[in-house]
Amino acid sequence: MTKKKIVNDPIYGFITIPDGILFQLIEHPWFQRMRRIQQLGITYLVYPGATHTRFHHTLGAMHLMGKAIEVLKAKDIEITDEEEESAKIAILLHDIGHGPFSHTLEHSIVHHISHEDISEMLMEKLNGRFGGKLNLAIKIFNDQYKKKFLHQLVSSQLDVDRLDYLTRDTFFTGVSEGVVGYDRIISMLTVFKGQLAVEAKGIYSIEKFIIARRLMYWQVYLHKTVLSAMELQVNIMKRAKELAAIGDELFCTPALRTFMYNNFSKKDFKDNPELLNTFAELDDSDILASIKVWTNHRDLILSTLCKWLINRKLYKIKLQNEPIDKKFIGEIRAITAEKYKLSPTELDYFAFEGDVINDIYNRQRLRINMLYPEGKLIDITKASDHLNASVLDKSTTKHFFCYPKDL
Amino acid sequence: MTKKKIVNDPIYGFITIPDGILFQLIEHPWFQRMRRIQQLGITYLVYPGATHTRFHHTLGAMHLMGKAIEVLKAKDIEITDEEEESAKIAILLHDIGHGPFSHTLEHSIVHHISHEDISEMLMEKLNGRFGGKLNLAIKIFNDQYKKKFLHQLVSSQLDVDRLDYLTRDTFFTGVSEGVVGYDRIISMLTVFKGQLAVEAKGIYSIEKFIIARRLMYWQVYLHKTVLSAMELQVNIMKRAKELAAIGDELFCTPALRTFMYNNFSKKDFKDNPELLNTFAELDDSDILASIKVWTNHRDLILSTLCKWLINRKLYKIKLQNEPIDKKFIGEIRAITAEKYKLSPTELDYFAFEGDVINDIYNRQRLRINMLYPEGKLIDITKASDHLNASVLDKSTTKHFFCYPKDL
Amino acid sequence: MTKKKIVNDPIYGFITIPDGILFQLIEHPWFQRMRRIQQLGITYLVYPGATHTRFHHTLGAMHLMGKAIEVLKAKDIEITDEEEESAKIAILLHDIGHGPFSHTLEHSIVHHISHEDISEMLMEKLNGRFGGKLNLAIKIFNDQYKKKFLHQLVSSQLDVDRLDYLTRDTFFTGVSEGVVGYDRIISMLTVFKGQLAVEAKGIYSIEKFIIARRLMYWQVYLHKTVLSAMELQVNIMKRAKELAAIGDELFCTPALRTFMYNNFSKKDFKDNPELLNTFAELDDSDILASIKVWTNHRDLILSTLCKWLINRKLYKIKLQNEPIDKKFIGEIRAITAEKYKLSPTELDYFAFEGDVINDIYNRQRLRINMLYPEGKLIDITKASDHLNASVLDKSTTKHFFCYPKDL
Amino acid sequence: MTKKKIVNDPIYGFITIPDGILFQLIEHPWFQRMRRIQQLGITYLVYPGATHTRFHHTLGAMHLMGKAIEVLKAKDIEITDEEEESAKIAILLHDIGHGPFSHTLEHSIVHHISHEDISEMLMEKLNGRFGGKLNLAIKIFNDQYKKKFLHQLVSSQLDVDRLDYLTRDTFFTGVSEGVVGYDRIISMLTVFKGQLAVEAKGIYSIEKFIIARRLMYWQVYLHKTVLSAMELQVNIMKRAKELAAIGDELFCTPALRTFMYNNFSKKDFKDNPELLNTFAELDDSDILASIKVWTNHRDLILSTLCKWLINRKLYKIKLQNEPIDKKFIGEIRAITAEKYKLSPTELDYFAFEGDVINDIYNRQRLRINMLYPEGKLIDITKASDHLNASVLDKSTTKHFFCYPKDL
Repeated sequence: MTKKKIVNDPIYGFITIPDGILFQLIEHPWFQRMRRIQQLGITYLVYPGATHTRFHHTLGAMHLMGKAIEVLKAKDIEITDEEEESAKIAILLHDIGHGPFSHTLEHSIVHHISHEDISEMLMEKLNGRFGGKLNLAIKIFNDQYKKKFLHQLVSSQLDVDRLDYLTRDTFFTGVSEGVVGYDRIISMLTVFKGQLAVEAKGIYSIEKFIIARRLMYWQVYLHKTVLSAMELQVNIMKRAKELAAIGDELFCTPALRTFMYNNFSKKDFKDNPELLNTFAELDDSDILASIKVWTNHRDLILSTLCKWLINRKLYKIKLQNEPIDKKFIGEIRAITAEKYKLSPTELDYFAFEGDVINDIYNRQRLRINMLYPEGKLIDITKASDHLNASVLDKSTTKHFFCYPKDL
Repeated sequence: MTKKKIVNDPIYGFITIPDGILFQLIEHPWFQRMRRIQQLGITYLVYPGATHTRFHHTLGAMHLMGKAIEVLKAKDIEITDEEEESAKIAILLHDIGHGPFSHTLEHSIVHHISHEDISEMLMEKLNGRFGGKLNLAIKIFNDQYKKKFLHQLVSSQLDVDRLDYLTRDTFFTGVSEGVVGYDRIISMLTVFKGQLAVEAKGIYSIEKFIIARRLMYWQVYLHKTVLSAMELQVNIMKRAKELAAIGDELFCTPALRTFMYNNFSKKDFKDNPELLNTFAELDDSDILASIKVWTNHRDLILSTLCKWLINRKLYKIKLQNEPIDKKFIGEIRAITAEKYKLSPTELDYFAFEGDVINDIYNRQRLRINMLYPEGKLIDITKASDHLNASVLDKSTTKHFFCYPKDL
Repeated sequence: MTKKKIVNDPIYGFITIPDGILFQLIEHPWFQRMRRIQQLGITYLVYPGATHTRFHHTLGAMHLMGKAIEVLKAKDIEITDEEEESAKIAILLHDIGHGPFSHTLEHSIVHHISHEDISEMLMEKLNGRFGGKLNLAIKIFNDQYKKKFLHQLVSSQLDVDRLDYLTRDTFFTGVSEGVVGYDRIISMLTVFKGQLAVEAKGIYSIEKFIIARRLMYWQVYLHKTVLSAMELQVNIMKRAKELAAIGDELFCTPALRTFMYNNFSKKDFKDNPELLNTFAELDDSDILASIKVWTNHRDLILSTLCKWLINRKLYKIKLQNEPIDKKFIGEIRAITAEKYKLSPTELDYFAFEGDVINDIYNRQRLRINMLYPEGKLIDITKASDHLNASVLDKSTTKHFFCYPKDL
Repeated sequence: MTKKKIVNDPIYGFITIPDGILFQLIEHPWFQRMRRIQQLGITYLVYPGATHTRFHHTLGAMHLMGKAIEVLKAKDIEITDEEEESAKIAILLHDIGHGPFSHTLEHSIVHHISHEDISEMLMEKLNGRFGGKLNLAIKIFNDQYKKKFLHQLVSSQLDVDRLDYLTRDTFFTGVSEGVVGYDRIISMLTVFKGQLAVEAKGIYSIEKFIIARRLMYWQVYLHKTVLSAMELQVNIMKRAKELAAIGDELFCTPALRTFMYNNFSKKDFKDNPELLNTFAELDDSDILASIKVWTNHRDLILSTLCKWLINRKLYKIKLQNEPIDKKFIGEIRAITAEKYKLSPTELDYFAFEGDVINDIYNRQRLRINMLYPEGKLIDITKASDHLNASVLDKSTTKHFFCYPKDL
């Protein structure tokens, strides 16, 4: 009897972890590290329930991958056991390169290296250690495998990654409106000429999925207070790096120190394998513990920003469709500069503008194929009589301006 | 101590029924009758969980009315105790005129008299019996009261009726995607210049509400198999009335007999008060029990249709955006006529076309006002950058063709 | 590709109906009839959400049977495809003999014949029609098959029947405390020496299951107002049969008439096959539609009781652990007799006592085996250090007294 | 208009935070700190969803306090606005003295000082800063206020603390069986002769509550793998303190360093107010970040234990009702000592026994009063015919033995 491990999930009930390579990968320290990285970073300052981790999300996505493959097989799509295992490996490891606070600090800790780059490097390393058992998974991950739909299950407009994170983020934030019918959508997946597609009758679920995703963007991911907190955290790291660059002493955990006092390139990562190991030691606690100490740093800018974050005195933020009134910005910045005695460059840490883009659905890059009975694939933007294509194609940009609360 | 009655609701947990007139109205036989009328009629043939009743829905809507009024009061909108009670009475009784199988048989049992007409007559009668205590409720119901927003809570594009039925229908059918954030939407209700409005930040919840409603239309209310079942039920009642008109004997409960063997006008209802009482004796069981007996009627058309309904051998149905191909219809009708030996008029009971309209959101008639900080009301179709106005304004018509399964 | 039918279930998400005999049985009119029989009968007068049907419950139980078999197979218990299908058939048909209002009217419509008797007769008939394909299912149902655990899954203290109905009744009534961890319990099922057992680590889930069931008994199944409504309904049928016996005319649907004006024995059912068909035409609507007409019957007892039920003016009821005070009963009965001018035998329809037994867990008849690592089976009453055996063995009897509300 | 803050809660929907002192306390850095302390400490190593925080729990408990007071007022129990606010303050601050990893490390960071002691000190400090506004709250907290039931709502066998944490822990772990009917229980609360009581009809809910709590103890709080992880974490802190005591250098955040290199008494806290501030800087990240660094410490015991925790190679654990076999323990300890070259005292870090007590319900200390109609208070252990008193009184002790996984 093959003893399978079962994990409790408040969303799906139970998640079964298959024996073998999948189990071994989950046991690996690099995977366990994701237990200490929250899926939504600092968002818990607005949604206190949103403390779920990348670890949990990834297990969930693997679970949905299993469901999706089960559905496709029942529709006579051929998928071998090896392909199934590899697709699950690919989704399990798709986020392994994320650093602390995920997207927020993506370019604060290492510049010019995305989490996808690091995921790839880590996957290659693991492949070495596991004797090439990840070969097919890596092919699928990089879309180099002939059965395109397997890659599309891992990464496309309707992949199991999105289906899990929307479901999970909805559950833990309590924003019940963001709910997507993951089980209904999965039950209507199919493959047509090698492409992942959704049966035509699923059109309302897909429309709903797109609108729910959009709602989650503005209600959660880019919620104005979340945005304000993320900007604050980014500014803290930026200031800390500036101070490090001029040799100021900063309390840091050893792993964090490596990245605060150096600027590594991709080449460095390749030349120095130890660097990847050091990166893989970082998690949210390194950042939080260090920021707490910095609340007492003698640099007034750093210590002020850190106090704001730790004690949740976030920037006041104006977020709107139209550009922010220049006069208003000018006035606020003048008052801020005076109150805090700031030079023009320093002022940007306290009062600054920016943009956010909600890139909901970009037809050019990726499509959601609806499969019609006559054997036609039609993109959802054309198939829907409700979601106007010209609108769906457009991404929405919003403008924001942050400034001190206590002005 | 005023002892309040508490009712268990799987959706809201508990619903508290206030003492006094509200309690007495709920105890009234006309209100209790709604326990025997299912909210979604025959829909349970497709969604087996959808057996919830008008009684339950109405209690739920009253509960949400209480929540909405609580929110508005907390925002300093003046609402007196009498107004609150009357708004609750109005929502409690808004559906009281529904006959068996609600919308489906609305014009099968009494022609030319809508359930709203009967609701009004019943409310007037109740008002008489309760010594005028329903005066204000009736005014609110008919939009004759100065505080327009109270009527809008009872009946508008965003009333507590819709909020409850979408939530409830979603819950009992299990179509979880249809979920609307009723609590979030209610928490963002406000009143501006006497009109009910939604705070601007609620825009994503409202978009979501509109899309969810649309999904429920096509996934549930106008689901093609539901449609097929409803058409079958309507045809049965039509055929039975035809037979009654020529004096054929039909098994009927006494109350149903009154309406099968007569065609009453509004005037009849006014001239003969007993008629209203008889109508108020009808519920789903009269129809079901009678249809079951008719499965053995000697009229082949009636008995065939009744067997189909009772044993769930529904019409095959084609439902699509484009009109159904005339040639296809012609062929099927020819085969059907031959197989069942039907005259042209009889054939319409077995194979027929029709249209359905999903009138989602009609800006001309009713609006959902979004309230912007500067004190501007903007309709959701203009406020949303995503739901294209030209699309929202348009209602969707679909075409269908029904024909025997066993052809 | 084998096209499987999928049914929406608000509890399990989706229920898949396998092709073949299972699908055909569900399509059969006798099975479809269960759509018109509510699982909890008249309970909806207390819990308005409890309108779910035997049809829905049975599909759910079949779904759990599938899950249980999947779990056992993963633990290397041998179960063939034929055994799996037959176990599913057995559970699908286990309730097929239920008449209208299930348990409440079990002995009001046909005396001395239980729903199990009728289930068996219907199953035999179906087996004939389906050419012996139900042979194994019937063996399993009657516990005549060598693999005892298959029967235990259908009918034992921890069968999928109980797991589904507790879960479902909890869901639809909204009594969330009654929830049992059906998925956790199923995941811990195993087979030891041919007997169904639960792994030892499941002990807390089983304790919880027993307590939850007990809670459901007193909170729902034997809730005092539910009890009062059931007694009323039983009395109505009893009085109607009395009147029928002396030749009084009663409005009845034809199928109901057969059973109101005759008293059939098991032998009658065997001698006259048509009788079984007539029984299989009955559902809740026959009873409700007839009772409504009887509200105007000239027999004052019948019409009064019917009015009380239809308008929900239920008996007042006293329910307690101790016998009801005789003096109190005497006084109330005297007042009642006088007010309603009743003879002593008539009085029993208006004011009467009775007992109810909550037979939670009877060690003598059936056990819940806990499997300990060393390969010992221990009954839950001995394995639990918390649920005292002497208490668990005891069934609880409560005493009640019903009398008119308007005294 | 008083603008109230609303917080999303996936359990209760929305939690409203009243204006004034309650809002100000929640904004205070000491309260915000609880955002960084997980309610169930290291439990997320077993239940990945269990990442919820003390902050979230405390808000939830305040919400339930509001509900409970609402219920009591509706039953004509007199509660003034000041008393209501104070009861809410008391529950809001009841856990404020918790250090990182809550109960697990309670005596690892400061010996002989409980979290209640620190809560009290912090509450006194806050009372000073807020000009005595917490006077009544502190009285209620310490059970010095005449209305005993207010203290009982904060702390008793059936307080809002327990109701929230059982509900919340169930939700986030996904152990759905642990669910308690918090809303039903609250709706049945009452006050009799100054004591909090539950109406007699609530008896099944209370039985269910007790069993659910017990289930949560063994399934979650004292789950054997959770226990193993907690023991590991405690041992790490103990070893680190030992090393600090002999002057070994340990990486620490500054606040943690204060407590690792000193042993403070209650007197120290009173004499040196700064100490309390330093304690109030600690949260989970200080511990995690430090333990991660210690994985490279030259002390083999410390580094080994830290690696085990961080990479989730927990002790193997045997947990049972009977004492662990001495011979087995002896053998394992011998093998362990040899493999890791450990002295007898060192060995206790790697292979050791212990006990856990599940002190469910101790009638001696606290009672759950059931109020019977005749005005009698009966303790649940006597009122229940099912939960045997002699069993309920008994606490369950289990024995465990931990040893290395890789033996």
